[in-house]
Amino acid sequence: MKLDSQNLADLAVGAAFLGTGGGGDPYIGRQMVQLCLNEGLTAELVDPDDLADDAFVIPTAMMGAPTVLVEKIPSGEEAILSLRRLEKRFGRSATHTMPIEIGGINSTIPLLVGARLGLPIVDADGMGRAFPQLEMETFGVYGISGSPMAVSNEWGDCALIEARDNGTMEWLSRGVAIRMGGAAYIAEYAMSGAEVKRTAVPRTLSLAIQVGRVLRMAKAEHRNPFDALLGFLPETLYSYGRIIYAGKVADMQRETRNGFSMGRARIDGFAPWTGAMEIEIQNENLIARIDGRVAAIVPDLICIMDSETAEPITTEGLRYGQRVTVVAVSVPALMRTPEALAVFGPSCFGLSEPYTRIEELST
Amino acid sequence: MKLDSQNLADLAVGAAFLGTGGGGDPYIGRQMVQLCLNEGLTAELVDPDDLADDAFVIPTAMMGAPTVLVEKIPSGEEAILSLRRLEKRFGRSATHTMPIEIGGINSTIPLLVGARLGLPIVDADGMGRAFPQLEMETFGVYGISGSPMAVSNEWGDCALIEARDNGTMEWLSRGVAIRMGGAAYIAEYAMSGAEVKRTAVPRTLSLAIQVGRVLRMAKAEHRNPFDALLGFLPETLYSYGRIIYAGKVADMQRETRNGFSMGRARIDGFAPWTGAMEIEIQNENLIARIDGRVAAIVPDLICIMDSETAEPITTEGLRYGQRVTVVAVSVPALMRTPEALAVFGPSCFGLSEPYTRIEELST
Repeated sequence: MKLDSQNLADLAVGAAFLGTGGGGDPYIGRQMVQLCLNEGLTAELVDPDDLADDAFVIPTAMMGAPTVLVEKIPSGEEAILSLRRLEKRFGRSATHTMPIEIGGINSTIPLLVGARLGLPIVDADGMGRAFPQLEMETFGVYGISGSPMAVSNEWGDCALIEARDNGTMEWLSRGVAIRMGGAAYIAEYAMSGAEVKRTAVPRTLSLAIQVGRVLRMAKAEHRNPFDALLGFLPETLYSYGRIIYAGKVADMQRETRNGFSMGRARIDGFAPWTGAMEIEIQNENLIARIDGRVAAIVPDLICIMDSETAEPITTEGLRYGQRVTVVAVSVPALMRTPEALAVFGPSCFGLSEPYTRIEELST
Repeated sequence: MKLDSQNLADLAVGAAFLGTGGGGDPYIGRQMVQLCLNEGLTAELVDPDDLADDAFVIPTAMMGAPTVLVEKIPSGEEAILSLRRLEKRFGRSATHTMPIEIGGINSTIPLLVGARLGLPIVDADGMGRAFPQLEMETFGVYGISGSPMAVSNEWGDCALIEARDNGTMEWLSRGVAIRMGGAAYIAEYAMSGAEVKRTAVPRTLSLAIQVGRVLRMAKAEHRNPFDALLGFLPETLYSYGRIIYAGKVADMQRETRNGFSMGRARIDGFAPWTGAMEIEIQNENLIARIDGRVAAIVPDLICIMDSETAEPITTEGLRYGQRVTVVAVSVPALMRTPEALAVFGPSCFGLSEPYTRIEELST
């Protein structure tokens, strides 16, 4: 599947939705890939089932605080440098690139890299959403080493990290990314086609495009976009979704700490919703509580959307006074196993509440 | 020259002297090399003039806060891992290793690496003293790139940094070293034998051994060790030295900040010295002021020594109540050029006073 401009526009919306507030501003990434299309380059998706077992896939991404990204725009060469560095390390050329997360800019960086280098992009990712830390990948949950990884910046500086485990890789590379100004570009979790099929969350790029299209079509046809979205989800691996709250953003705390965008949003409910919802943020929306009671919890998706336009709102875009609707969505089964929850379940973010599937929570 | 146990003991004293308070506790490094000698291994110094022009020299060192080093003892494998990583990067085996600074533990880490790997150690270094930052090397002043450099820890984690300049290399690798716990082990400034001859401060390892021996012999023969030391210096590249103060440590401020040991010591003078001396510290002693007037300033050496034993005292060893004698020493000419002062002169440490040679300062 070769992407066109409409696909890119839909992808930006769908990736912001799946990113649960994180992954960086999708607008910037979309414009960078659009520029490639304008130049006649091609961004071509490949289904993971069509990968040769011995394909050599090098995923590419941005790492850093989304709040930084919107002021420190990439040149577009950074992630390419990181991919080239890993090729040199392995002594082997990549056959494909792939997203590590399907959120915001990180759904589009691999498109940019693929278009520029003439590499097809695998239609899959390693988070099935966005997560703030690099060890929080299904790749790692199911045995792939994130190292060696490369971190590069717009000056051509590059650090090649080889760490004992994926958590240490995250810790050390975050130190570099912070000193590169809070946003840097990486290549990591290099793996074979067989390993992609075994460990990746499949078809999330095309899913994001479909989500964007569903919302766009509904609005064009004056149907309720929330109904359209929730009606579409059962056809996907993200089979369950519902609105868990609607109201007005009443308070927003935000700071960039340890290289992450940390924050807390309070939403005061509109009838029939009562009380107030509080959402805790580490780059992404982690937990939503209504008057202290859990309404949705990581890794299930918590998506804050504009109540009028159904546009997903990234955490750095949240503002006092916005009227928002909060949608929670179940994640695919491979993200809910005990192994997966040990890597990106609530306790990994310091949350004391246990994971409870959104299907089993009442609102 | 093959080192024996007596050489090691003398080196530890001399390197603490040349380290001007920094470079890490020499005791730890001495014990690690002694262990090698006990096992029958050899630490052999080679004069830089005897290096083949096409020799391939990989310097090795510790980087981090000396205050951390004394609690986080190295395993001895860390610097070897970094050297091996650079060999792999260059596709070439090192013929020699070398110190990057002739201070404290960093005079002995290359001995440890050389003894373990059977590599001779070049009798030279890149600072002619100790400095807190990795761009502050005569190697870099005279055109050698510090990158690629490797940073490793006791867990086998390794970061290979390739930076646009040596200041950026320092900045990025410091971020990694901090996240490795505040002390890590490096290989950097890989260069040819010809480049060593052009850019290194020569014969500083043997000088440190001589300094230690001069102090030891004077004490054994009940001569004044300070007189013996100051009488010896004119035979060396460090041709001028004098006592600039003596008194009691009256106040000591110390903190580990941004990966460095930062501090300030106040010494109240004993007659005939009047007033109070304040010494500012970033890992090393940077400037000594008597009642606000400069008495000695970086890059000249400022060495705080025990008034009774003439033992050099490292910055982390300074304590309230110690009776100390402060000696200032001129550095070799290649460390006083405009190019050198642009990299490690007073302004590089945020000091507002211009560099004035110790020969031209009165006390």
